Amino acid sequence: MRNKHNFNPGPAVLPEPVLAECARAVLELNDTGLSLLEISHRSPEFAEIIEEAETRLRQLMNIPDHYHILFLQGGARLQFAMIPMNFLSRGKRAGYVDTGIWASKAIEEAQKIGSVQIVASSKDNNYRHIPRRFSIPSDLAYLHITSNNTIYGTQWWEFPQTGNVPLIADMSSDILSRPIDVQQFAMIYAGAQKNAGTAGVTLVIIRSDLLEQIPSEHLPSMLDYRAHVRARSLFNTPPVFSIYVTAKVLEWIQNQGGVPELFRRNQEKASLIYAVLDSYREIYEPHAAPEDRSIMNITFRLRNERLNDTLLQWCQDAGIVGIKGHRSIGGFRASLYNALPLKSVEVLAEVLKAFAQRYG
Amino acid sequence: MRNKHNFNPGPAVLPEPVLAECARAVLELNDTGLSLLEISHRSPEFAEIIEEAETRLRQLMNIPDHYHILFLQGGARLQFAMIPMNFLSRGKRAGYVDTGIWASKAIEEAQKIGSVQIVASSKDNNYRHIPRRFSIPSDLAYLHITSNNTIYGTQWWEFPQTGNVPLIADMSSDILSRPIDVQQFAMIYAGAQKNAGTAGVTLVIIRSDLLEQIPSEHLPSMLDYRAHVRARSLFNTPPVFSIYVTAKVLEWIQNQGGVPELFRRNQEKASLIYAVLDSYREIYEPHAAPEDRSIMNITFRLRNERLNDTLLQWCQDAGIVGIKGHRSIGGFRASLYNALPLKSVEVLAEVLKAFAQRYG
Repeated sequence: MRNKHNFNPGPAVLPEPVLAECARAVLELNDTGLSLLEISHRSPEFAEIIEEAETRLRQLMNIPDHYHILFLQGGARLQFAMIPMNFLSRGKRAGYVDTGIWASKAIEEAQKIGSVQIVASSKDNNYRHIPRRFSIPSDLAYLHITSNNTIYGTQWWEFPQTGNVPLIADMSSDILSRPIDVQQFAMIYAGAQKNAGTAGVTLVIIRSDLLEQIPSEHLPSMLDYRAHVRARSLFNTPPVFSIYVTAKVLEWIQNQGGVPELFRRNQEKASLIYAVLDSYREIYEPHAAPEDRSIMNITFRLRNERLNDTLLQWCQDAGIVGIKGHRSIGGFRASLYNALPLKSVEVLAEVLKAFAQRYG
Repeated sequence: MRNKHNFNPGPAVLPEPVLAECARAVLELNDTGLSLLEISHRSPEFAEIIEEAETRLRQLMNIPDHYHILFLQGGARLQFAMIPMNFLSRGKRAGYVDTGIWASKAIEEAQKIGSVQIVASSKDNNYRHIPRRFSIPSDLAYLHITSNNTIYGTQWWEFPQTGNVPLIADMSSDILSRPIDVQQFAMIYAGAQKNAGTAGVTLVIIRSDLLEQIPSEHLPSMLDYRAHVRARSLFNTPPVFSIYVTAKVLEWIQNQGGVPELFRRNQEKASLIYAVLDSYREIYEPHAAPEDRSIMNITFRLRNERLNDTLLQWCQDAGIVGIKGHRSIGGFRASLYNALPLKSVEVLAEVLKAFAQRYG
């Protein structure tokens, strides 16, 4: 029986009805006489699935027609390379904001391709906050940000105004968790395995004029956004199953009332945990600056770190998994993605409260 | 009910027990209390899955320890780019054999990166045969071949002797279908969605000394084989579900008696179809030269092409799907991958025979 409270940072919890539907489709897709895993990616059945995924995503995020939607492989990591390969031409410079390990890995990959300027960083205080009031040179090829930082538990609540500089955001860990204005961005990308499905597919939302900046020569086809746009994500065999899971997750989000309703729930869930942490500050030390707190990933340490294993044991006894912090900052991390039920959050809040009362 | 005779060229038919096990794992993986789609790729559960996949592949193909096994994303198409990016350094030249559309797409990608010599080609006779008796310059960075050509229905039955030149093979459509000597190759790669699983994962088998040829600078990490080798395919979030399917397909192959037994069955299946085509040559025109015939993909045309739709209808009435030829050569293609039951092949053979008798 699937009965854990799943706080995994990704791949992460999925909605029960989505899992049931995916399991059925593995046995037989609708009444095709075939498993979902056996259909051709050129079949009408798959055309319907990928179109469903695209249409639902467009509806949920209010994506205008002059943005393309792609379903690619390789995760955010491959996007780290593709973005500069496509948009950082010789003689240009790209801007990056360094808000944590994932942001700095994106920076490293861009530096291999071309000239990079780190326009702001919160590295000096161990990425506790999101940089504010930094200047953005108007001649940048693009500005890259990481909208939510899973490891540190910070999140951008106000996006930078970049004027004519295309803003590109890695939204792997908060896409579809809160309303955003897509038109603030030239490109958004996200590995699906946190809020939008399972591992194996990456969502890319890209404004069509950005494609005109791509130098035409020597770019491998698989790494050229134009090839994927032209082929509507069927340039090569796509990850059929993962795209199906995404389509079903998007349907589930619509059935729940869309992104605004999930945002309301996510705020409610996060505030339950933050409230306990803030009530017992002699026990818990939250990592992120209060004004930059993420509602997706809540990070904290115990003031007495010798109690770490005890708290882990309490969590385990309550059926809670995935709560251990990332090895780079230690402590604890509770990931509260869209599909995590309120019930699971209540269980964790109770454990944290009882633990604080016992050891406070 | 899953009841079609599935001759799809890929993604393709999978064994019934594998599908049942995958559907169960989507609901709950073993007794973890979590769905397979929700587990962390850093969990002990996933470590076991990927190790199982690697161990079984090593056993099934007798892969020596000095070869690494990787599970990557992006399909054979991304390998087309990664191979020259990693191994075709400046001042070097790579050799390619052009045996069809996939081989020539690999050539196009290599030409974007460096210097390419097409050492042999069967393009002049519409790829009906596999080139023989061509010379291989001893200074090539590597020689690349496509072991089975899905579109034309040809297959290499004797691999070129390359001496010190590393031989690299795209085995996407015949891996695990027949015994091969891995040690003839420096690298083998294959999209899983034909004989080794479902779409979303690519198998790469790579001899460790080849890694030393990679120039160390400016290669994006995701496109650098060394990064994946160091991280044992966990450089970034891997396609968890697709790797699980592969592990289960490999287990199924072992339960069937391994690659030699599948080879015996595949020969039997292919000969059933070829026998009918050869018995009714006034009706059917097989594409491939007899000595280079593939046992994976059988391609043929009707001499009277006005009967194409009729034959398609006969097939459809018998529950046969995926039989239409690739748009580039037309006609028909029967893909007989490992998991296709003999029963399905018998049904097709009967249809072809009855059709020939009716219209002969």
